[in-house]
Amino acid sequence: MEKFFEYNWKVREEWLEWCNQLSNEELLKSRTGGAGSILSTLFHIIDVEYSWIRGIQGKKDVVVEFADYNTPEKVKSLSDSFRNEIVEFLKRNGDEPKDKVVSVSWDEDNYTVDEILHHIIAHEIHHIGQLSIWSRELELPPVSANFIGRQFKSIYSY
Amino acid sequence: MEKFFEYNWKVREEWLEWCNQLSNEELLKSRTGGAGSILSTLFHIIDVEYSWIRGIQGKKDVVVEFADYNTPEKVKSLSDSFRNEIVEFLKRNGDEPKDKVVSVSWDEDNYTVDEILHHIIAHEIHHIGQLSIWSRELELPPVSANFIGRQFKSIYSY
Repeated sequence: MEKFFEYNWKVREEWLEWCNQLSNEELLKSRTGGAGSILSTLFHIIDVEYSWIRGIQGKKDVVVEFADYNTPEKVKSLSDSFRNEIVEFLKRNGDEPKDKVVSVSWDEDNYTVDEILHHIIAHEIHHIGQLSIWSRELELPPVSANFIGRQFKSIYSY
Repeated sequence: MEKFFEYNWKVREEWLEWCNQLSNEELLKSRTGGAGSILSTLFHIIDVEYSWIRGIQGKKDVVVEFADYNTPEKVKSLSDSFRNEIVEFLKRNGDEPKDKVVSVSWDEDNYTVDEILHHIIAHEIHHIGQLSIWSRELELPPVSANFIGRQFKSIYSY
């Protein structure tokens, strides 16, 4: 599982760099699907990952507003900050029973830790696929989605 | 890993059902990004998954042409047929060392079994994200991408 987190973080970092070639107006422009714009989709990925990881740990949800993170620099800073806590959780993950049932404030159903970790991973990859369409529509090459042939930063190097 | 295959197959099945509300012309219409059309993107996912699973096993690649599978029924039939072999591979997967290095005809680099399995999974989720944008552009609700709250057919039930 942790390799998928490392992959997602690498791809996310490259998309945030990719954003630097566009104006902020273009990044915030309303688009069809996803979370409604390029930057808000990246923000949404980060917000959702962090909320679920906190939820697994029984921690209270931290509400963040996109209006406060509406540039690639601010989104990157949020991502880096949240990731520090997620890395610590993943490093200790062996301690957490995969079948532990988790209840969170934003969903009336309960899920196991294992289901939630799968959900977080698929959630990010799915939204990144959406960015790739918008990228092509802008006539820009998207960031590669390849897992193979990519170097990831290990969670143990944070 | 196998849960992601089960998830991908369930989501793929739902997208193939989703296709039935559109004309074949709409499904084959050229679109920006992905594999160029809705149906060719679904075909591409199936083709790539099967090629890599055969590659891991040292089996010769089976070349399939989209022109021969240009309706949702034919794509579903291809998916079902390839999946039977993939299920058998996944059921035996414990036998395959995850760090075994694999060489395939279509890529000059070598990858481990573990890298390839991650790649196949991310590849499908990424392309499904692309379909969700096209779906919204067609003003149709996309298939849910949620991993949580979904029932999958176990590989052991095939």
